[in-house]
Amino acid sequence: MKTAIVIGVGPEDGLGGQLCARFAKDHHVLVAGRTQEKLDAIVDSIKASGGSAEAVVADATNEAATQAMFDKAGDDLALAIYNAGNNTPGRIVDMEADYFEHSWRVCCFGGFLFGREAVRRMQGKGGTVLFTGASASLRGRANFGAFNSSKAALRTFAQAMAKEYAKDGVHVGHVVIDGPINGEKIKKGFPQYAEKLGDEGMISIDGIVDAYEYLYKQPRSAWSFEVDVRTHLENW
Amino acid sequence: MKTAIVIGVGPEDGLGGQLCARFAKDHHVLVAGRTQEKLDAIVDSIKASGGSAEAVVADATNEAATQAMFDKAGDDLALAIYNAGNNTPGRIVDMEADYFEHSWRVCCFGGFLFGREAVRRMQGKGGTVLFTGASASLRGRANFGAFNSSKAALRTFAQAMAKEYAKDGVHVGHVVIDGPINGEKIKKGFPQYAEKLGDEGMISIDGIVDAYEYLYKQPRSAWSFEVDVRTHLENW
Amino acid sequence: MKTAIVIGVGPEDGLGGQLCARFAKDHHVLVAGRTQEKLDAIVDSIKASGGSAEAVVADATNEAATQAMFDKAGDDLALAIYNAGNNTPGRIVDMEADYFEHSWRVCCFGGFLFGREAVRRMQGKGGTVLFTGASASLRGRANFGAFNSSKAALRTFAQAMAKEYAKDGVHVGHVVIDGPINGEKIKKGFPQYAEKLGDEGMISIDGIVDAYEYLYKQPRSAWSFEVDVRTHLENW
Amino acid sequence: MKTAIVIGVGPEDGLGGQLCARFAKDHHVLVAGRTQEKLDAIVDSIKASGGSAEAVVADATNEAATQAMFDKAGDDLALAIYNAGNNTPGRIVDMEADYFEHSWRVCCFGGFLFGREAVRRMQGKGGTVLFTGASASLRGRANFGAFNSSKAALRTFAQAMAKEYAKDGVHVGHVVIDGPINGEKIKKGFPQYAEKLGDEGMISIDGIVDAYEYLYKQPRSAWSFEVDVRTHLENW
Repeated sequence: MKTAIVIGVGPEDGLGGQLCARFAKDHHVLVAGRTQEKLDAIVDSIKASGGSAEAVVADATNEAATQAMFDKAGDDLALAIYNAGNNTPGRIVDMEADYFEHSWRVCCFGGFLFGREAVRRMQGKGGTVLFTGASASLRGRANFGAFNSSKAALRTFAQAMAKEYAKDGVHVGHVVIDGPINGEKIKKGFPQYAEKLGDEGMISIDGIVDAYEYLYKQPRSAWSFEVDVRTHLENW
Repeated sequence: MKTAIVIGVGPEDGLGGQLCARFAKDHHVLVAGRTQEKLDAIVDSIKASGGSAEAVVADATNEAATQAMFDKAGDDLALAIYNAGNNTPGRIVDMEADYFEHSWRVCCFGGFLFGREAVRRMQGKGGTVLFTGASASLRGRANFGAFNSSKAALRTFAQAMAKEYAKDGVHVGHVVIDGPINGEKIKKGFPQYAEKLGDEGMISIDGIVDAYEYLYKQPRSAWSFEVDVRTHLENW
Repeated sequence: MKTAIVIGVGPEDGLGGQLCARFAKDHHVLVAGRTQEKLDAIVDSIKASGGSAEAVVADATNEAATQAMFDKAGDDLALAIYNAGNNTPGRIVDMEADYFEHSWRVCCFGGFLFGREAVRRMQGKGGTVLFTGASASLRGRANFGAFNSSKAALRTFAQAMAKEYAKDGVHVGHVVIDGPINGEKIKKGFPQYAEKLGDEGMISIDGIVDAYEYLYKQPRSAWSFEVDVRTHLENW
Repeated sequence: MKTAIVIGVGPEDGLGGQLCARFAKDHHVLVAGRTQEKLDAIVDSIKASGGSAEAVVADATNEAATQAMFDKAGDDLALAIYNAGNNTPGRIVDMEADYFEHSWRVCCFGGFLFGREAVRRMQGKGGTVLFTGASASLRGRANFGAFNSSKAALRTFAQAMAKEYAKDGVHVGHVVIDGPINGEKIKKGFPQYAEKLGDEGMISIDGIVDAYEYLYKQPRSAWSFEVDVRTHLENW
């Protein structure tokens, strides 16, 4: 059985959790994130469904932890998904240097470490590396200076990587999530906002996971770099 | 059974032909193009496989023909694909006005007629409209002034349409084909070029058709506007 | 004295009129548009200031008229500005085919004829061709399907032309006007809207003309293709 | 007399040096960079021409140094230019984490510190902040993963900042330099490459400086965010 790594995993009813669940259907999944408890819940759930998974507590911005995680994945690694990184709103005049840097560390630097370790192992042999993007990846907008900058940094890095390693059999993709995700984060964190949006106004996690699976299953004679995803109610 | 229209259909081993074949698995397909004989071959082949299809000889740039085709599709229309339009290279100084206009008529004006008739029928009821794009749709390049202009016109029209009708349940998508397609057109028309590229250097039609099918099957809680497709050997 | 052509000229207090006035400082200007009376007013005004100009009544979408205009410009042609084209809002379902086509004819096809005639004469000898763009040139938006399509067609054509003729000494540029222009058209046509926007909310024509002059004066060792212009109050 | 800051200043015959020289015509200029000797040479040259300038040895990535520099600029600060950041080519598999991070620190993080300190002082009062970009800012490319990522991060940050502070009177601009600069860096560092390109194949520094001056002088009724600059021989 092939192995998949998903990093940036939080609650089971979140994008990371559902990416794990989906790929656990036919992969051994390394479920990676910062909180042991949350990872364990997902691993247990996968095992209960007859799948194979293990939890890897790892800080995505830590080089040694990233390398150890890839070493653990071993030779059967077929898919690596970088899903770490949170929105970091705020006005530039008020922004602490640490805040700006932290946004880059999680959204971009961790993605570089992850992407580099993946291509080091997949080069020649083949494999797929997918990154989670946002509409913020595409253009700057008032109040999103830090997040815009770090997500654009990740996307452009991913594009360079896609071009650099395609001939070596490594497929690099980027999923642009344009709008709020219908998952636990918004429902627990911003229940009123979630209610106002309604189910129709938030992107279905299952639909987003489809995009990752679609990219992953493409033959190398027809690879995509980017897929955008939004609800039919989104203003864009 | 739902109905699908595909316009811009030539040889069976071409993108239009294979789009018809794929969607004929679970749709009645209107196989539309300029040459009766070619359309008949595809319809026969679909019927031989137990599918349902009919040929519609139609000039995509003709308003009445486009309307008649949509009338023929009837109330069960679920999918409409605009695949007409050929590359029209040439230097601007040498370009006849008719040549420039013809490129726009086939690549863009026909797409407008097609898109308008589709949304007129799908609005409120739902449906999917997909357009064939190219890397030429995205930026201008020496020697492609006419094709660049008409494909960018189509893409930006499609994007406006996507935003205008999403709330009415119409999903509009655009597939960016980045490179030569591995089909009859190149193999018969430019055999030496095809040989030089090799199978690995031309995009698999099956892989391209997957992109259309992927877009078509998306739930409205997770729609994409654009998917790009290229081989792993493409320089981009 | 060098010659400049400006087509798409209406009232004196409009972009076309002010482009003529500015370049008349050191060029003989062909003031081209559809209405003799308006052109004459501008020519008279230029002459009253000691400049040199002549009116050319011409339909920008007519090939013979475009060629005659360039023939009239003669050998000293240094600058050619395509400023024709109006916004054409409307929903796609309601749009007549003629309306859609007319938008393309004025915004794009006329620009092709103009650009082709310009490069035919400037190739090797050098010269500058500038096109008026809009934020609509850059992306599709609900209610602007026709204008989006035809402006994107023009921009991508201009980009192809810029790349195709740079080595032959022809500088092609595109000015993206992002917002309402502070001129007669809005003040007379939509006085309430103009009042609501206020002078600060509309782009200064003088500032826009600066962009054309800046592009025109660039040495070939440092050419730009595109400049965007908006007020400090614009939401973008 | 108004004050201007230029950071990222090296040799006199470089972009930073020539930006200082140009704006010293009517500003007191803070000439900022890492090497006292180089800064002194430029300051001496400005003073010899009757201008006013002072050297500020500063690491652009250091928060305290950046703040001290802005404090030194005082209340008459009208223009702040961030010109720090070098190209950092290399394949991703071979890239040390420090190398990747350093690219971001110089190209993007320093730009954030600089931009934040500038808007903190200019907000309400007005002023202009300009950033040096590259074609690498716009898209990813094989062998430029680090530089692409950090320049895209800077550009998208600048765009967010432009939108966030325009209404407060702060004009933020970004100059996309597309190709090699005809200055001391390439002539001394890569003399054979410079010779192969020839003067016509490298962008004139004077022409680039014109772009900064053009942006700086724009009235707020007609601001640009971005100007691209290349030679007429550039392939793009």
